[in-house]
Amino acid sequence: MKPVNVGVLGLGTVGGGTVNVLKRNAAEIARRAGRQIVITRASAKDLSKKRICDTHGIILSTDPMDIINDPSIDIVVELIGGTGFVKELILQAIENGKHVVTANKSLIALHGNEIFAKASNKGVIVAFEAAVAGGIPIIKAIREGLSGNQIQWLAGIINGTGNFILTEMRDKGRDFNDVLAEAQALGYAEADPTFDVEGIDAGHKLTILASIAFGIPLQFDKVYTEGITHITRIDVEYAEQLGYRIKHLGIARNTPAGIELRVHQSRYQSFNKQTAT
Amino acid sequence: MKPVNVGVLGLGTVGGGTVNVLKRNAAEIARRAGRQIVITRASAKDLSKKRICDTHGIILSTDPMDIINDPSIDIVVELIGGTGFVKELILQAIENGKHVVTANKSLIALHGNEIFAKASNKGVIVAFEAAVAGGIPIIKAIREGLSGNQIQWLAGIINGTGNFILTEMRDKGRDFNDVLAEAQALGYAEADPTFDVEGIDAGHKLTILASIAFGIPLQFDKVYTEGITHITRIDVEYAEQLGYRIKHLGIARNTPAGIELRVHQSRYQSFNKQTAT
Repeated sequence: MKPVNVGVLGLGTVGGGTVNVLKRNAAEIARRAGRQIVITRASAKDLSKKRICDTHGIILSTDPMDIINDPSIDIVVELIGGTGFVKELILQAIENGKHVVTANKSLIALHGNEIFAKASNKGVIVAFEAAVAGGIPIIKAIREGLSGNQIQWLAGIINGTGNFILTEMRDKGRDFNDVLAEAQALGYAEADPTFDVEGIDAGHKLTILASIAFGIPLQFDKVYTEGITHITRIDVEYAEQLGYRIKHLGIARNTPAGIELRVHQSRYQSFNKQTAT
Repeated sequence: MKPVNVGVLGLGTVGGGTVNVLKRNAAEIARRAGRQIVITRASAKDLSKKRICDTHGIILSTDPMDIINDPSIDIVVELIGGTGFVKELILQAIENGKHVVTANKSLIALHGNEIFAKASNKGVIVAFEAAVAGGIPIIKAIREGLSGNQIQWLAGIINGTGNFILTEMRDKGRDFNDVLAEAQALGYAEADPTFDVEGIDAGHKLTILASIAFGIPLQFDKVYTEGITHITRIDVEYAEQLGYRIKHLGIARNTPAGIELRVHQSRYQSFNKQTAT
């Protein structure tokens, strides 16, 4: 059978990692998928930049439209991020009859309804497993694995950077700003970490999870969002003394009044005490 | 679109529960599946027995072959259990071109290779998500959700009865036989609990998980199996004093010599100490 030709938009941390995994596990993936999956094209803003992936055998361009308009491409993998011109890229890829894979949670949370409607209309698939919880197949588990169930509520730590900051504050008694600077230096947080520390990133993910779990449209504007910027070392210490830990959670709950969507920090009794029964 | 007609073989705890869930969540399931899924027939050994499910609107028989030979049935759901005549039932259902859903882990572990070969040959699906970890979609997560990954090892508590016994022994200082008798009375353990306490049930599940995770044939005969029958209250107490807990695990590991498959109790350092960093 003819291989599946993939074009990757964006060759940063996620795009480069995707190229590496698809190349390294090519034989195993082909065995499982029943067809070879080959990255034939990729785009990046600056082609002279040093990459974490080997781009040998991949046609490179600076213009993503080269890929989107290439009739030989079956699947466009969007790993640029953001919601501006990227939305237009994805809509054009769908218009051109291509399946789309994206890890872009803000795009799905804010414009998913429009994107999915167009994809349905054109008979193509928009897959977004990596948009929430990276390598953990939570989207598939909720949508397919639990499709016979009625979900009452879901809750989880859904922002890694925020969780790293709270954990370091608790374990090492460090200050918020100090840990945030380290998270940025380590590449966990964005240069502008607002999305992470203000709960916006978690809000995007909660929007997506709730839409799948409860069969409702994507409604980011309905999410109550609170970040962790006002949590101090003293809060963390007091919580600890009282037997609690501060965690930043996304919570979606089916209530008689509708689906409740909340992102904020919760003071849960510490895990040690909860399980010590 | 025409509804999917389902015939359920066996109306015990699992079969009756399946009827209840498919009836209760019918509207939601139809919305997600894109087609109505209707149980039109069911079989049980003794039709006079009191059931946990409402069988209104379902044609009942004592002979499962009535269902397997009914041309209107699309999917046969086998919830009888065991490996004797049930294997013949499933092979005949496949021969008749029906898709099969089963929760029968011993059947899949021991005869899955033959069953899957026949299903592939006849172009039908044999689905067995419920054979391992009941309502947790672990089969789908490994097979589809992680299909781009190379799995190095997997480990878990995969027998609920054994875990209940060890937990009660630890938490309440009870004796093995005492807890086992309670587990039987509560309906957790079978009347003959050998499969649970000798690690055979966990071995069946490990066989299935390893086959999917590593892409190898089902090989229950290669599993090293040890049960929990020789664990005493004193063992549990000593482990606790040393900061450990005794857990019964299934472990599959990719080694240079091949795939290692083991079911036995492990003395892991207690969770409190492990996470207290």
